[in-house]
Amino acid sequence: MSRQTISHEEGAIYEFTPDLDPVATVEPGAKLTIETRDSLDGAVQSDEDVIDTIPDEVNAATGPISIDGATPGDVLAVEIEDARVSEDRGRVITIDGFGLLDGHESIEAPRTTVTPVREADPEGGPGTASGDDGAASDGGDAIVFDGHEVPIDPCIGTIGVAPADEPYTTLVPHDHGGNLDTTDMSAGNTAYFPVFQEGAMLAMGDSKAAMADGEMCGTGSEIATDIDITVDVIAAEDVAITLDRPLVETPDAWKTIASAETMEEACELANLDAIELLAAEHGFSETKAYKFSSLVGGLEISQVVDPLVTVRNSIPKAYCSGPF
Amino acid sequence: MSRQTISHEEGAIYEFTPDLDPVATVEPGAKLTIETRDSLDGAVQSDEDVIDTIPDEVNAATGPISIDGATPGDVLAVEIEDARVSEDRGRVITIDGFGLLDGHESIEAPRTTVTPVREADPEGGPGTASGDDGAASDGGDAIVFDGHEVPIDPCIGTIGVAPADEPYTTLVPHDHGGNLDTTDMSAGNTAYFPVFQEGAMLAMGDSKAAMADGEMCGTGSEIATDIDITVDVIAAEDVAITLDRPLVETPDAWKTIASAETMEEACELANLDAIELLAAEHGFSETKAYKFSSLVGGLEISQVVDPLVTVRNSIPKAYCSGPF
Repeated sequence: MSRQTISHEEGAIYEFTPDLDPVATVEPGAKLTIETRDSLDGAVQSDEDVIDTIPDEVNAATGPISIDGATPGDVLAVEIEDARVSEDRGRVITIDGFGLLDGHESIEAPRTTVTPVREADPEGGPGTASGDDGAASDGGDAIVFDGHEVPIDPCIGTIGVAPADEPYTTLVPHDHGGNLDTTDMSAGNTAYFPVFQEGAMLAMGDSKAAMADGEMCGTGSEIATDIDITVDVIAAEDVAITLDRPLVETPDAWKTIASAETMEEACELANLDAIELLAAEHGFSETKAYKFSSLVGGLEISQVVDPLVTVRNSIPKAYCSGPF
Repeated sequence: MSRQTISHEEGAIYEFTPDLDPVATVEPGAKLTIETRDSLDGAVQSDEDVIDTIPDEVNAATGPISIDGATPGDVLAVEIEDARVSEDRGRVITIDGFGLLDGHESIEAPRTTVTPVREADPEGGPGTASGDDGAASDGGDAIVFDGHEVPIDPCIGTIGVAPADEPYTTLVPHDHGGNLDTTDMSAGNTAYFPVFQEGAMLAMGDSKAAMADGEMCGTGSEIATDIDITVDVIAAEDVAITLDRPLVETPDAWKTIASAETMEEACELANLDAIELLAAEHGFSETKAYKFSSLVGGLEISQVVDPLVTVRNSIPKAYCSGPF
């Protein structure tokens, strides 16, 4: 099957709403390349470009894409096959009123550090950071932060589907996905979302060339990307659990993903979802699954800033074959 | 240097106080084997043994051990060389009024699941869980939870030193360490603590045969252990930062460790400490270090139940040579 490209220029949303109109409709099994722009719509190109307040429109998500036949109760599977940076620099910023340490006297905002993509060196020796000429890069293997190289490992910050009832801006994560800022949304992994609306209405953007779990200052290295995915639909009757929230499958683990107002609430939801997986897998009571969840895998932090926070509960595949 | 054994039978504390009396005094560089009993003092030997409420005395910490010459402002280094389980079973429990999902209708408390240590099989084939005869085990390589084997990877739940001002029971973590329930407190890593009192007064116990990050139900597989450590003292003038809280060094990373009433507060403290490490290493401003901390390593959850919660901020050694 040939791969269809869908660009942010064809359509991008700043809000996941229940009644989205698709920019494209594809069949289950479709292979797509999703082109995304950076979360700040290109407004930051140098260290002198600062963002005073969070823009009304941020985290443009390319799409939405309707997947033919996806029906509420089904699960949308998004296999992330590859993710490549598609510009020559990322940017890390602080914004007044945002971030884990917002208001701390030692932290200045707004500030910007541009992270050039190091040009790949065909000789295999140490590379050099690309210049400030705005030329597109083929994608090096590292960004450079103030002279320090950080390997490029792109993740998709905002990815989700049309929600059930309430609209959510692309700044906010919730049960539909959205601004999950989860490092596992990266090549080699598969993301699963509940289908709340006909066609699911997948959209994604807000990629990072690199990001720490937590995304403490409020951003990773924000950058445009090309993302190769395959989408599929899992019928409701083929799902062993009730999938209320996103789930991600890595080569080694199943990870439930929950967003809430506090980290404690997010931990509770992520753990309850993990317990449901373990109970379905092993026939455990919920109490026994709870105890087992305290032995293997564990809680992980996605982000603490969006302003709802996001937590994962990882279960190694050695203990869980998954719900599909 | 010969290795000195210090057993919980010689002395164990249930409270870290500023004015502890040592059960032993050792020189810097001393090699010790610390024998610990399980966190519930042997009260749970079968699934029928349940714990109705948190005991007044829990998490017995073997010690305290005075390290000669350790003076307030210095740093105590505890190299964890090996940790072996020293009984034939661990136990995972729920207690009413405790745990991440305390009060959820689907979760029953008090409940116990005993996790026998699987006998090591000299033939190398699949092992069998040890029986219920109370015999000590040489230490197998897995525990068995309701028929499911989980590799044994002992971590020390409670480890710390005499605090600066306030006493803390061994149920509570704080800047002195205590009930950190951090999976990185395990063989191959080195823990560092601020010295608040003459001699530091190291104590440890509350080990787990296995534990998930988060320790959601309130315990891992609680078990007695023998822990080989080497203790050392780093003089204040040889420390590049002000160490206010525990720090752990793994083969790949430096991890700050912070405990607080909420996860958000613990994340802030752990991130501030990581920023101090990065700023000292690279000459970054705190703002620049904050941005860099959002790119590499990240926030990790130690535990969410004790009832103060504990969070780590990991910095890969590729970006930090450490403060010593």
